[in-house]
Amino acid sequence: MSKRIYIALLHSPVYNKEYEVITTSVTNLDVHDIARAARTYGVKRYFLVHPLEIQRQLVDEIMRYWLTGWGSESNPDRQEALKILELVADLEEVQKRIEELEGQKALTVVTDARVYSRSVSYQEMRDRISRGDVPYLILFGTGWGLIKEEMEKADFILHPIEAGSDYNHLSVRSAVAIILDRLLGNGR
Amino acid sequence: MSKRIYIALLHSPVYNKEYEVITTSVTNLDVHDIARAARTYGVKRYFLVHPLEIQRQLVDEIMRYWLTGWGSESNPDRQEALKILELVADLEEVQKRIEELEGQKALTVVTDARVYSRSVSYQEMRDRISRGDVPYLILFGTGWGLIKEEMEKADFILHPIEAGSDYNHLSVRSAVAIILDRLLGNGR
Repeated sequence: MSKRIYIALLHSPVYNKEYEVITTSVTNLDVHDIARAARTYGVKRYFLVHPLEIQRQLVDEIMRYWLTGWGSESNPDRQEALKILELVADLEEVQKRIEELEGQKALTVVTDARVYSRSVSYQEMRDRISRGDVPYLILFGTGWGLIKEEMEKADFILHPIEAGSDYNHLSVRSAVAIILDRLLGNGR
Repeated sequence: MSKRIYIALLHSPVYNKEYEVITTSVTNLDVHDIARAARTYGVKRYFLVHPLEIQRQLVDEIMRYWLTGWGSESNPDRQEALKILELVADLEEVQKRIEELEGQKALTVVTDARVYSRSVSYQEMRDRISRGDVPYLILFGTGWGLIKEEMEKADFILHPIEAGSDYNHLSVRSAVAIILDRLLGNGR
């Protein structure tokens, strides 16, 4: 099985708590935790998407510390994880990069707390991914999540993460880990 | 099904990168991410275990901000998650607290990157938990993980998280999210 999986973490446009459309700032552990989970599950690239150059520069400095600075010697595992990280300005750039790497555009996958009529199950998405005939790009939103317009544009909407409780407020870091495990893990 | 699940995050004794036994300091996002995942999956209590009072005081201040301070108004979901957090000095205190709450001691569950002869599968552990006849306490280590002696004392050792790659360096936050989803989630 050849996995052709990409993920992207969007900082804009996303919702805030009041469902206004905003741009969030970068969180250091989103860089590390998500890169480590992505590398663990065989994701080919983790795109960190931020429209502001100053924010991308900040992450670039963090990356350089771990890729070529002291961090690369003190913790080579971290270096290995951050090798798959790429900084881009918007989703169009993500798709352009995947097309360069794969020779075709990726189908996009999102998750939401709501169920849509066209929602697909994790098992169905696993099966599609394992066919390996097309690259998939899973989108995650920071803040209070991806905006409705972005959700509607997606090729696939995954079912919400069902946890069997009345509460579902996972961090994006936890959500990424769980979704990668459901779609790509094999230790059930 | 009545889930009687507890988790504990140990800061001591754990390994560092050189497999020396150390005490780690508290990480803010271990408090938040793990409380949110625990609350989402119906965990009854999340014990943050640290031997140093000064470190527990630090977390106590964070908790008070979200439980009764400004954070409780600005983000009630966070308040809800942190309600299940308890600060204790060591594992004995964790077991004592569970005995007070449940009238019986919890069986302990750990995970490791290695497979042991007595390792159990996630499915087997799910079945045991769903019986509800005894409380279970899942232990997680910070740093480079729980020490060997603690692993050997555990009642159950789960199989490693198999991700199908040559790399497995998840953050403890990601590992907690994945393991709770495997043991308690129902959205496969």
